[in-house]
Amino acid sequence: MKGTITEKILKQHLVEGNMTVGSEIAIKIDNTLTQDATGTMAYLQFEAIGIDRVKTELSVSFVDHNTLQTDFKNADDHRYLQSVAKRYGLYFSKPGNGICHQLFLERFARPGKTLIGSDSHTPTAGGIGCFAMGAGGLDVAAAMAGAPFRIKFPKVVGVKLVGKLNDWVSAKDVILEVLRRIDVKGGVGKVLEYFGPGVKTLSVPDRATITNMGTETGCTTSIFPSDEITKAFLEAQGRGEQWIELVPDNDAEYDEIMEIDLSTLEPMIALPHSPGNVKKVREVAGIKVDQISVGSCTNSSLRDLKVVANALKGRTVSENVSLTISPGSRQVVEHMVDSGEFNYLVQAGARILENACGPCIGMGSAPCSGAVSVRTFNRNFEGRSGTKDAQVYLASPEVAVAAAITGEITDPRDLGEYPKIQMPDKFFVNDNMILNPLPPEEAQKVEIIRGPNIKPLPSFDKLPDVLEGTALIKVGDNITTDHIMPAGAKILPLRSNIPEISKHVFEAVDESFAKRALESSGGFIIGGENYGQGSSREHAALAPKYLGVKAVIVKSFARIHLANLINFGIVPLTFKNPEDYDRIDLGDKIEIDIGDLKGDVKLKNITKGFEIELTHTLSELDAEILKIGGKLPWIKEHFSK
Amino acid sequence: MKGTITEKILKQHLVEGNMTVGSEIAIKIDNTLTQDATGTMAYLQFEAIGIDRVKTELSVSFVDHNTLQTDFKNADDHRYLQSVAKRYGLYFSKPGNGICHQLFLERFARPGKTLIGSDSHTPTAGGIGCFAMGAGGLDVAAAMAGAPFRIKFPKVVGVKLVGKLNDWVSAKDVILEVLRRIDVKGGVGKVLEYFGPGVKTLSVPDRATITNMGTETGCTTSIFPSDEITKAFLEAQGRGEQWIELVPDNDAEYDEIMEIDLSTLEPMIALPHSPGNVKKVREVAGIKVDQISVGSCTNSSLRDLKVVANALKGRTVSENVSLTISPGSRQVVEHMVDSGEFNYLVQAGARILENACGPCIGMGSAPCSGAVSVRTFNRNFEGRSGTKDAQVYLASPEVAVAAAITGEITDPRDLGEYPKIQMPDKFFVNDNMILNPLPPEEAQKVEIIRGPNIKPLPSFDKLPDVLEGTALIKVGDNITTDHIMPAGAKILPLRSNIPEISKHVFEAVDESFAKRALESSGGFIIGGENYGQGSSREHAALAPKYLGVKAVIVKSFARIHLANLINFGIVPLTFKNPEDYDRIDLGDKIEIDIGDLKGDVKLKNITKGFEIELTHTLSELDAEILKIGGKLPWIKEHFSK
Repeated sequence: MKGTITEKILKQHLVEGNMTVGSEIAIKIDNTLTQDATGTMAYLQFEAIGIDRVKTELSVSFVDHNTLQTDFKNADDHRYLQSVAKRYGLYFSKPGNGICHQLFLERFARPGKTLIGSDSHTPTAGGIGCFAMGAGGLDVAAAMAGAPFRIKFPKVVGVKLVGKLNDWVSAKDVILEVLRRIDVKGGVGKVLEYFGPGVKTLSVPDRATITNMGTETGCTTSIFPSDEITKAFLEAQGRGEQWIELVPDNDAEYDEIMEIDLSTLEPMIALPHSPGNVKKVREVAGIKVDQISVGSCTNSSLRDLKVVANALKGRTVSENVSLTISPGSRQVVEHMVDSGEFNYLVQAGARILENACGPCIGMGSAPCSGAVSVRTFNRNFEGRSGTKDAQVYLASPEVAVAAAITGEITDPRDLGEYPKIQMPDKFFVNDNMILNPLPPEEAQKVEIIRGPNIKPLPSFDKLPDVLEGTALIKVGDNITTDHIMPAGAKILPLRSNIPEISKHVFEAVDESFAKRALESSGGFIIGGENYGQGSSREHAALAPKYLGVKAVIVKSFARIHLANLINFGIVPLTFKNPEDYDRIDLGDKIEIDIGDLKGDVKLKNITKGFEIELTHTLSELDAEILKIGGKLPWIKEHFSK
Repeated sequence: MKGTITEKILKQHLVEGNMTVGSEIAIKIDNTLTQDATGTMAYLQFEAIGIDRVKTELSVSFVDHNTLQTDFKNADDHRYLQSVAKRYGLYFSKPGNGICHQLFLERFARPGKTLIGSDSHTPTAGGIGCFAMGAGGLDVAAAMAGAPFRIKFPKVVGVKLVGKLNDWVSAKDVILEVLRRIDVKGGVGKVLEYFGPGVKTLSVPDRATITNMGTETGCTTSIFPSDEITKAFLEAQGRGEQWIELVPDNDAEYDEIMEIDLSTLEPMIALPHSPGNVKKVREVAGIKVDQISVGSCTNSSLRDLKVVANALKGRTVSENVSLTISPGSRQVVEHMVDSGEFNYLVQAGARILENACGPCIGMGSAPCSGAVSVRTFNRNFEGRSGTKDAQVYLASPEVAVAAAITGEITDPRDLGEYPKIQMPDKFFVNDNMILNPLPPEEAQKVEIIRGPNIKPLPSFDKLPDVLEGTALIKVGDNITTDHIMPAGAKILPLRSNIPEISKHVFEAVDESFAKRALESSGGFIIGGENYGQGSSREHAALAPKYLGVKAVIVKSFARIHLANLINFGIVPLTFKNPEDYDRIDLGDKIEIDIGDLKGDVKLKNITKGFEIELTHTLSELDAEILKIGGKLPWIKEHFSK
């Protein structure tokens, strides 16, 4: 990875560790962002750390997920977030201003900076040359407290772009092509770094579409160079002075190379229910469509809406189709209105929703039963739309608008002439929905406002040398964090209320789990292979911890969940001998002498009267964090003063 | 009422009965409208009647209530409604097109016609000189099947308008003044007919604001003359040929007269939790505000949004305030965009929501805990906003925008110069979100599409001569249909599933009611004055019927709810001696010998061992309908072939 952008930025931000692939490094974090669904918990954790003011160069709290407000909880969260931002020196973007990643790109992101965000699509800012990663809320809280962020040093994949996209083919097709090639696990442990002559044919929002959805490959992040196009974008945003050039050396060495000839790409589409299930549109053309949704952090930029509006001009949305538009930001809307293109959408019969994540996070616009929905979003997991039996397809704005016009999946090249769109030289800049950080002396006087659903973070004790309790649940292989801690419109509003959300732990697997765990004063989870795969949500560790889970004993762990268990003081242990899994039953009384967690440990099954050996992959630091009760007390000890 | 508009229209439409105050008459219904929250049930009932095609001149099915779509249910309802409209010869307005009353006024309403709608704010069309009434869904279904609509011939109150409104005072203040004078029961049994020299100072949308919120007085309807201003409005909508003049005779005789000098009015506001709790804004100025919501069928017209936009021009919404805007129709949005005024809203930091009822019906935008919310809507019943402890105030767009700017309740006259707004000579007409009725031969081939939440209407037995059961609940005065059958984001999607929605009857008043009623195999509701005011929702009768409620015994009823009780076979009875209300307690065992319901009836309180007399206002026909188990079997017998 010599001479790559990735190397340059990581070298500049290195705090600790060795820059060789697979080694753990710690890097300084310049910027953080949060959205409201994960942000409330991140700030409760930040409050618990006990720092007086954020220590990053810039931290921003956005509201874009929970904007429906079907009861008091969402609005209470917004008010809490606003007061926290004022108290601790953050920028706060009010609900209605837009989607965090679109706004961060427009107004904050800078080439060469490091950013972590409590949202997996934080790599959007890679489109401007920022090294941007998704992280758990506690890691974002720690970064705001000044702690470096730990990652395994990634392999750098050079994605060489040559040629130029044809009409009706756009940035979304580039990332869909990447996903077609490497699928949803192909990026694990890697950075996708784009280079080559094709780069300069892509605007910053195009690049951001690609880095945004790069997340679906499982990669650490994706990044583009900062070049003259980046400069022009920053200048158009009135931030020209924030530009720096950031390009790979001519002799940069990539760990791998993937070449994409843009001129050969055609319109692509991801079929249900995986972003990696990619086909050419013409292979599935003709499928009848019930709903089209344009928006999300992937495709809600001014360019995207202009393409849709101009393709719709003078046409009417097909009779049996519902077309929703969720603009990415107020800036986008202001330009669309100013140019009159907004009315092409209105006249065609689009349903224009608030500037927010909306349908992408299942917050409204759930399609009808058994619907086919074509969306410009980045995920099409089963049920995520809010309708369990819906078939969700992911595609570009071009493909979406073609389907809206014809009522079926359609190769947009069949629509005729590609609309010529005119981008502004200067964007309208209006930050009056972004509240600036207060000066420290004023900030200290701010009172934090909590609603009845916002509960303080429970505090957890140091771990004893011997863990005692019962086997509270025994599950099989491939348990996901969705099994452990379900999401959805009902449970998402409870994210700032651990006692309440904890009642839903393992709800779909074993409804009585939460009650039993609490009544047993804690115990152990017994599981099989690949325990904790899927979403990175930290509530899948935090909520079981609240219920008294002391250790999780399984055949193997998924990586992110393992980290989350350590963060919240639950000991992650594996059977040395996998067959021992069969020797423990629900309700068995168990004792584990963990000592200082430096080596293997012994599990005594008191009920059945035998001993077995357990092992783990914990580093010394991990063991230290676990023993003092999790990362929060550890951060408090090391970073709060 | 000689020579009044009311007399003229009713005479022309009279099918049966005597035109004397208080007599029941049956009138021919020219037009019907439904919205989706009440419409799904209305069309299930229409289907049950078994007619092949609607028999009205024009019937329109709108979608404006359940537009959040947090799961499959809303979208399934929309699809059902669209297929029913195609099957039975109705117009269908797609979701996103706007609010039913605003759209009906713009595109359908005609002076001199009769209209019933399954929404209590149907009198909005009275602004154009249409005799428009809210009704239960079953009455609308019956009207579509060709049945006349029955009302008590109303007293006609002549509301004489003189003078002209001052700057910052608008139509909303006129109806708030009416409510201040006669409160939420003052219109019962009456039509509020506006006349006098002040009428010509009000535009059709102004008049519609007044007739819309006239509903809150409990009146049968409100109506304005059709004059040269009406003509200009219809011409601007491209419907000039639909105009007829409709004015009272010079010597018209009103049963009562109420005079309002428009020039003496000042900005008014209804305080929590009743639309009749009206004060001058300056009496409550200074109260801090958390949320402002502009929109609803009362105040979402182009004029209203222009006033708000121009007052906001160059200003920013107060930091701690959330301002939502729900435009009434696409026509409104298209003009706002075309004139550039839409951007004044965007630039000031307003949150612009979909063209729909939205926050007014508790579909999203619930304010934070304990919030003060100032809304341009027509109802501020406790909890209707979605936040139980919110304090909702009702006011004009002028008062709303003043609060948005200052962050507190503010007399808008303090803002300085009143914005001059320019209304278009010709409205943009674009009906491509309204699907036209199909010709009969095509319509017959249409398949009706039902989702899994759309359940057939339960059928109910004939009433016995003696009703037996317990007093299942005892409530006070002014119980609204929102108390009986709550709405909001959680419950509205259940409107086409009676067994499911019935679980929520009286939920906010007494959580155990539904369970108790079912387990008691039925009984009685005991209430005070004005029982059943507010929304026309028939679910407030249908769901209690499903739970086994046999009679409602109160001091007095609101009109539409009384009709709904009869429609669903619940006997509406009143205490002959109001003090007897105090003699019945929750759980008392009761027997009522209703016989043929021709005269007063006796209530035996078995538990306490006494008898009291109850009375009713039931006509012979009402009695007949009740005895055979409700209106649906009756309509089937008389109108289906």
